[in-house]
Amino acid sequence: MQQGDLSVHSALEELRDLPYQDLGFAQVDHHRPLRAGFPEVVFGQGKTPRQIAAIAEAVTSQSGCVLVTRATPAAYRDVKRRLSDARYDRTARAITVDRRPERTLKPGVMVVAAGTSDLPVAAEAAVTAEMLDSQVERLTDVGVAGVHRLLDRLPALRQARVLVVVAGMEGALPSLVAGLVEAPVIAVPTSVGYGAHFQGLTPLLAMLNSCAPGMAVVNVDNGFGAGYLAGIINRMAA
Amino acid sequence: MQQGDLSVHSALEELRDLPYQDLGFAQVDHHRPLRAGFPEVVFGQGKTPRQIAAIAEAVTSQSGCVLVTRATPAAYRDVKRRLSDARYDRTARAITVDRRPERTLKPGVMVVAAGTSDLPVAAEAAVTAEMLDSQVERLTDVGVAGVHRLLDRLPALRQARVLVVVAGMEGALPSLVAGLVEAPVIAVPTSVGYGAHFQGLTPLLAMLNSCAPGMAVVNVDNGFGAGYLAGIINRMAA
Amino acid sequence: MQQGDLSVHSALEELRDLPYQDLGFAQVDHHRPLRAGFPEVVFGQGKTPRQIAAIAEAVTSQSGCVLVTRATPAAYRDVKRRLSDARYDRTARAITVDRRPERTLKPGVMVVAAGTSDLPVAAEAAVTAEMLDSQVERLTDVGVAGVHRLLDRLPALRQARVLVVVAGMEGALPSLVAGLVEAPVIAVPTSVGYGAHFQGLTPLLAMLNSCAPGMAVVNVDNGFGAGYLAGIINRMAA
Amino acid sequence: MQQGDLSVHSALEELRDLPYQDLGFAQVDHHRPLRAGFPEVVFGQGKTPRQIAAIAEAVTSQSGCVLVTRATPAAYRDVKRRLSDARYDRTARAITVDRRPERTLKPGVMVVAAGTSDLPVAAEAAVTAEMLDSQVERLTDVGVAGVHRLLDRLPALRQARVLVVVAGMEGALPSLVAGLVEAPVIAVPTSVGYGAHFQGLTPLLAMLNSCAPGMAVVNVDNGFGAGYLAGIINRMAA
Amino acid sequence: MQQGDLSVHSALEELRDLPYQDLGFAQVDHHRPLRAGFPEVVFGQGKTPRQIAAIAEAVTSQSGCVLVTRATPAAYRDVKRRLSDARYDRTARAITVDRRPERTLKPGVMVVAAGTSDLPVAAEAAVTAEMLDSQVERLTDVGVAGVHRLLDRLPALRQARVLVVVAGMEGALPSLVAGLVEAPVIAVPTSVGYGAHFQGLTPLLAMLNSCAPGMAVVNVDNGFGAGYLAGIINRMAA
Amino acid sequence: MQQGDLSVHSALEELRDLPYQDLGFAQVDHHRPLRAGFPEVVFGQGKTPRQIAAIAEAVTSQSGCVLVTRATPAAYRDVKRRLSDARYDRTARAITVDRRPERTLKPGVMVVAAGTSDLPVAAEAAVTAEMLDSQVERLTDVGVAGVHRLLDRLPALRQARVLVVVAGMEGALPSLVAGLVEAPVIAVPTSVGYGAHFQGLTPLLAMLNSCAPGMAVVNVDNGFGAGYLAGIINRMAA
Amino acid sequence: MQQGDLSVHSALEELRDLPYQDLGFAQVDHHRPLRAGFPEVVFGQGKTPRQIAAIAEAVTSQSGCVLVTRATPAAYRDVKRRLSDARYDRTARAITVDRRPERTLKPGVMVVAAGTSDLPVAAEAAVTAEMLDSQVERLTDVGVAGVHRLLDRLPALRQARVLVVVAGMEGALPSLVAGLVEAPVIAVPTSVGYGAHFQGLTPLLAMLNSCAPGMAVVNVDNGFGAGYLAGIINRMAA
Amino acid sequence: MQQGDLSVHSALEELRDLPYQDLGFAQVDHHRPLRAGFPEVVFGQGKTPRQIAAIAEAVTSQSGCVLVTRATPAAYRDVKRRLSDARYDRTARAITVDRRPERTLKPGVMVVAAGTSDLPVAAEAAVTAEMLDSQVERLTDVGVAGVHRLLDRLPALRQARVLVVVAGMEGALPSLVAGLVEAPVIAVPTSVGYGAHFQGLTPLLAMLNSCAPGMAVVNVDNGFGAGYLAGIINRMAA
Repeated sequence: MQQGDLSVHSALEELRDLPYQDLGFAQVDHHRPLRAGFPEVVFGQGKTPRQIAAIAEAVTSQSGCVLVTRATPAAYRDVKRRLSDARYDRTARAITVDRRPERTLKPGVMVVAAGTSDLPVAAEAAVTAEMLDSQVERLTDVGVAGVHRLLDRLPALRQARVLVVVAGMEGALPSLVAGLVEAPVIAVPTSVGYGAHFQGLTPLLAMLNSCAPGMAVVNVDNGFGAGYLAGIINRMAA
Repeated sequence: MQQGDLSVHSALEELRDLPYQDLGFAQVDHHRPLRAGFPEVVFGQGKTPRQIAAIAEAVTSQSGCVLVTRATPAAYRDVKRRLSDARYDRTARAITVDRRPERTLKPGVMVVAAGTSDLPVAAEAAVTAEMLDSQVERLTDVGVAGVHRLLDRLPALRQARVLVVVAGMEGALPSLVAGLVEAPVIAVPTSVGYGAHFQGLTPLLAMLNSCAPGMAVVNVDNGFGAGYLAGIINRMAA
Repeated sequence: MQQGDLSVHSALEELRDLPYQDLGFAQVDHHRPLRAGFPEVVFGQGKTPRQIAAIAEAVTSQSGCVLVTRATPAAYRDVKRRLSDARYDRTARAITVDRRPERTLKPGVMVVAAGTSDLPVAAEAAVTAEMLDSQVERLTDVGVAGVHRLLDRLPALRQARVLVVVAGMEGALPSLVAGLVEAPVIAVPTSVGYGAHFQGLTPLLAMLNSCAPGMAVVNVDNGFGAGYLAGIINRMAA
Repeated sequence: MQQGDLSVHSALEELRDLPYQDLGFAQVDHHRPLRAGFPEVVFGQGKTPRQIAAIAEAVTSQSGCVLVTRATPAAYRDVKRRLSDARYDRTARAITVDRRPERTLKPGVMVVAAGTSDLPVAAEAAVTAEMLDSQVERLTDVGVAGVHRLLDRLPALRQARVLVVVAGMEGALPSLVAGLVEAPVIAVPTSVGYGAHFQGLTPLLAMLNSCAPGMAVVNVDNGFGAGYLAGIINRMAA
Repeated sequence: MQQGDLSVHSALEELRDLPYQDLGFAQVDHHRPLRAGFPEVVFGQGKTPRQIAAIAEAVTSQSGCVLVTRATPAAYRDVKRRLSDARYDRTARAITVDRRPERTLKPGVMVVAAGTSDLPVAAEAAVTAEMLDSQVERLTDVGVAGVHRLLDRLPALRQARVLVVVAGMEGALPSLVAGLVEAPVIAVPTSVGYGAHFQGLTPLLAMLNSCAPGMAVVNVDNGFGAGYLAGIINRMAA
Repeated sequence: MQQGDLSVHSALEELRDLPYQDLGFAQVDHHRPLRAGFPEVVFGQGKTPRQIAAIAEAVTSQSGCVLVTRATPAAYRDVKRRLSDARYDRTARAITVDRRPERTLKPGVMVVAAGTSDLPVAAEAAVTAEMLDSQVERLTDVGVAGVHRLLDRLPALRQARVLVVVAGMEGALPSLVAGLVEAPVIAVPTSVGYGAHFQGLTPLLAMLNSCAPGMAVVNVDNGFGAGYLAGIINRMAA
Repeated sequence: MQQGDLSVHSALEELRDLPYQDLGFAQVDHHRPLRAGFPEVVFGQGKTPRQIAAIAEAVTSQSGCVLVTRATPAAYRDVKRRLSDARYDRTARAITVDRRPERTLKPGVMVVAAGTSDLPVAAEAAVTAEMLDSQVERLTDVGVAGVHRLLDRLPALRQARVLVVVAGMEGALPSLVAGLVEAPVIAVPTSVGYGAHFQGLTPLLAMLNSCAPGMAVVNVDNGFGAGYLAGIINRMAA
Repeated sequence: MQQGDLSVHSALEELRDLPYQDLGFAQVDHHRPLRAGFPEVVFGQGKTPRQIAAIAEAVTSQSGCVLVTRATPAAYRDVKRRLSDARYDRTARAITVDRRPERTLKPGVMVVAAGTSDLPVAAEAAVTAEMLDSQVERLTDVGVAGVHRLLDRLPALRQARVLVVVAGMEGALPSLVAGLVEAPVIAVPTSVGYGAHFQGLTPLLAMLNSCAPGMAVVNVDNGFGAGYLAGIINRMAA
């Protein structure tokens, strides 16, 4: 067990590199800690614009970049006042600040959305993957009821190294895509639907029960999670 | 309201034609009464072979034909002993006796099954539609993960007047088919699946939330219901 | 497999006729694409009046008619400004524009609503079927607790070629109707109810478990889907 | 609060009359204690034949009568060996011993079953009400899909003082009956069904959401509970 | 079957007495039709004050009394303007108009509420039973966690002919009461609670699973249904 | 953060005392690791008698005592062959071996069961608490429908330092008990019930929604968890 | 049974000490009655500021202290006007008045929160335990995804006599903590989360299924219940 | 759109390479089609040993290797008779035949199981990834309640390129692991648990709601899906 001690010791050395240290700022919510070399991410929902601005400034001063998800325009205004180079993606509801040196984005991530109502979640995935140095290609409005449009884009689909497929309603698109490509597919159910949809439970269950291999699922509307996973998979690609 | 009386009176005259009269036989379960000119249907599940045989004989002597769904081989043996012209579709688990005069089956019904595990339900639908004078074309093992095989059969799909599409797992096939054809699609979820499938709830919800128009859904594994509906729709086609 | 290529080729020729082409307009949501000869349908929920008006104009200029479901009065005002011949059915919450040459509506569709609270969904079904060239007869407030009123209308019920039956609460009406008629019944559960109703799950489950044959179910509150299916079934009737 | 003491004291005097005293017998399960003058009830499910026989003998020796619900034929054989006047209702799965002096049963309870598969639950309700001195009329196989048969029996239905209505599948029958009579209706959902039926949850929810007044619901398959309630209501009738 | 015709005929004669006739007024929602000699009931939820006032006036002019449940103060103001003798029970959210000749209320109904938050539902039950000519005794704030207070009122509890017991939270009160009395208990779960309460599903399930006999359950928050049932049971008592 | 290192170091020193070390035995399932000075616990469900016996022997040789929960009689026979001083509590389905020096059990734990069907879970709780050096008093068959029996035992109830209250059906007993005592109450729902009981979900939800303070809940049928918690609470009592 | 009478009599003497007596004030909701020597607790949700102020004043005049949970700032303003020594914990949303003689708080309770969004529930637990004379240590933002931070605090965690662990999202923290300490752990799921979280059902289920011993669970967001239970456990510690 | 035709044409050329062609064998279930260069996979559940053997032989003769998941020992015996080089992994319940030329397995996949009961699912994942040319390291019995054991293996965990983490019970392990590593984590909930576990729904929800980034989820017990995804991710790693 002596050896165990050493391994634990070095493991904890590594752990110390994780960005979990206190910011000396009370209301910071580290729900989504990231790894070394990545931007800190702030989950904006349930926080006031003022809180978000303060956190964003603190994080940026420390690590040079920040990603705020689920941010309202009001939050962006407050952030902009403190960080004049902040940008806002209205569809993704995401604020980004990036003062890292110029990076070359690595191609390989494709984000596919079934309908235009799924665009906010798809955009969140795309912005996240881009912050992780991936170049993202986007494909929209190719629901399973119009398979011709999807086939039209098959060559592009098959060139991607990893795909994020976003769908509400019956959630069938990821299965269809996963049957057409060889790359990993990250499926994102959305809460878009009505009736017996249960705020996304229907596409979530459908995606989990897919008979197509090479696919895994993240939580309903979790564009961030899918984009993050796509980013780290693409980063490791040869 | 005088007039109402008359209308009710004539309505009840019509109602009397419905085959709900007592068979003079205690254990008959009229769960699935049918309309004039159609065979009586017996739901075999939960009945003993002996009960099924007695009911089948009584019904046949009255109306000349009978359809027993969810019938075991043992039930068939007992029926066969009383009605030597009984036939058994092992896949559909259906016993049929048909002493009606020679009929010409009307083409127009197509039954599509996503996987081979969905075949019993698909077969039940097909047998039922055939008993209602429809000629049924069958297409099997064309799950959404292999869209190429489905497209191969597109011309046949588009010739059908009404389609029954049977799928378990994530239940995406009916959406895909309904997006490719102009005819009515009756979707049948099956209890085939595992994990978070909930005995067919997953494909049921997926089918109800389909974004493809021209489609309605029957209960999980209810091949009979789908075949019956397909049969009466096909019968009314020009 | 050579032959397969050909069939796929011709299939794709057909697919090209589907109205899935880009409108050159970014926010169009083709959730409900329809078939050749039918009006384009726009799902109004979750879109701004301005977006709806722009889409409606684009669609009308292309195909001569449009149906907007789940449209608010505000959306109608914006559409009216661009398309002066637009009409609004307040109960159905539906906007229609129809510049097709004079058509003769084909009788055969009946829409039955259990209670007055179910009227918006029933009206959406009726408007949709009418846009598909069906003449629609409507019957309202004939819930299962007052069976006498339904029996009063039995002759009319039995003349319909296809029926849409809309019910909230316990959802028993479609079963009752399907037991009285020989035509196909499309059941629509509504979210009307309270307590352990779960926004329509209760009537949905009840309808799926109906012991009456000849019936299928669409999603909760999906009047459009039911009306569309009724329309294409009625269209094919002899 | 002095007065409160007195009231509590007299209340507890009354409570002492309840049959909760120990039988000096370890495995007795008093899940269903009854009131003064009524037979003791034993819930047979989950007990061995030997246990049931011992309890039944102990109860009979004390109160002169016993009702065992959910009893297997094997349990009956063991009871019969100890209590030779025990009777067994095979459909209701109920054992009864009744050594009370001759009673005149009071008419007024009607038990209605939607299908033959609902008969065991209906029979349990009937046997229970009879043990509570009610005369029970039974009506079977009058599901909502065949409304004509129910109407045929309307005069009898309307003469009952209290009705127990038992239904599986979509559970619509109690609503229909409650819309036709003025007497209280006790609805019993059964676990009879398949697909999205959830072992009786579907008819349970349907019955709870009934739009007919004068109706309440007991647990799935709880024929005993319904029969007991019907019995005490009928007993109090003028 | 000749005889059947006659029975059906007389049955329909009776049915005609039911108050389902058209009021010549379009938006009337007959969700809760009542029996001969009883006031018409209007379910106020989802109707505008203006609609409620018009319906209430129409009903009153026809039958001399009306009960509007789930009515807002605004609805009351509108009704009051048309029917100056309308009264409003703010807790029960019920409007009543009663121009029937002086009636003597019959004692026998007790309405018990677990907590003060359950009072609106309890009051709706009480008002309804009173409209059905029952004299109602009320007992409040006797939750299961303070059993002493309930025991203090045991003599009163045991004098009631029928009890309505209303409870949210864990819904245990009806079981406790049913174990103390011999009369029928109608249990009403309420949506009062938080966390894993599911808007009343928790007490609903608890009440359905009660091990106390003589009890049945109505839908969540359905004070009307419970009061109605209590009224008709009390009316038939000797 | 230097200090942090030290604290982590000492923390891990402590962690090393936890009994998680490998037994050099492959199939051991450490699902329920315990703390220093306590017996090791083996979850018997899903293991073969042979596996249980081997694990029990290994654990006993190391720590001098073992508790096997959910053990069948067959498992006991195999254990007995290897450990002749093993004992079996048939109701609790628990095997114990205890070679620790004579201990004085500390009074203070009371285990209450609503019905006799809840006894196995109650017994598992009692055996577990006894293995943790608590003296356990047991009270059985005091369901909420017979409150008099519970009140009879009130003095004993109020003397306990911590109570485990086990109930199936509607799960009301813990609320009632917690309203009568000042000590902590650990509520255990059981899977005993039928109909809309969902294998214990009903009493679980009821207990979580209790309006009585001083109570917490463990998983359905988790007598072990409740007994363990009661044991460590009682151990810390003055 | 004579003896039983006596025991019940003395039990009821004790019961009389419970604070369930009427305040002579109509709208008081005694949902959360407490034991002798403890402050009265008022559940603020669903009450108007005016009601809360009146109740708080009545309770304080009687017992010298009060705790109002789920109180808005507006409620505090109204209370402050009547009771000038009232204090408000904005995070916990709790109003307290405490005129009891100086007390020494007993150390031993630790409240751990997974994320900053869980702080309101954690604070409610802490305030409650403090009102019960416990000194509370708080630990925040130590979610399972950053185990290093939790290990940093291991010595403090292991010194606590009883721990309240609050977590939303996946609810894994209590399991982790319970695996590290020997003291009882009270787990509190929160409604913090999104997607397939179901307002706290996910962490609730996760906590109930924990494989760590020594842990029990209270309702979603029930900080009060957890703090109360922690307080009475800590009070009994040696 | 001319260009679209070409792209679709070439896309279909690619599609033709997918192994969906008919085997000229009726009962083959292509539920899990794989990509070029990979072995065909047969889902063994629900197939007879004879069927499995015939399919395995057909597939092997075509592609040189096959993987049968969910295979019983009996199925293995039948396969072995036809394919003497078949191997069986009893824990994974997987049959493999591999006649491909010698391959060098690429390191990088780690499969972690929370408890020994999760081993079958973990083994299925490992076998699958190995068939996809990954070298798999396995780590077992490191549940979240014993975090020390996991930390002991931290260096190994952090060296993996992709991790499959399998857990039943509360499903917390993947969150903990994902918080410690930088590589993608594929979480697999298992149906191992009892009480309110719902056959794996609890860990499934917990994993979907994880606050750790870099993680996605597959269906309950879907070891195959996780291993497949891990294999194709590892294959693309630099």
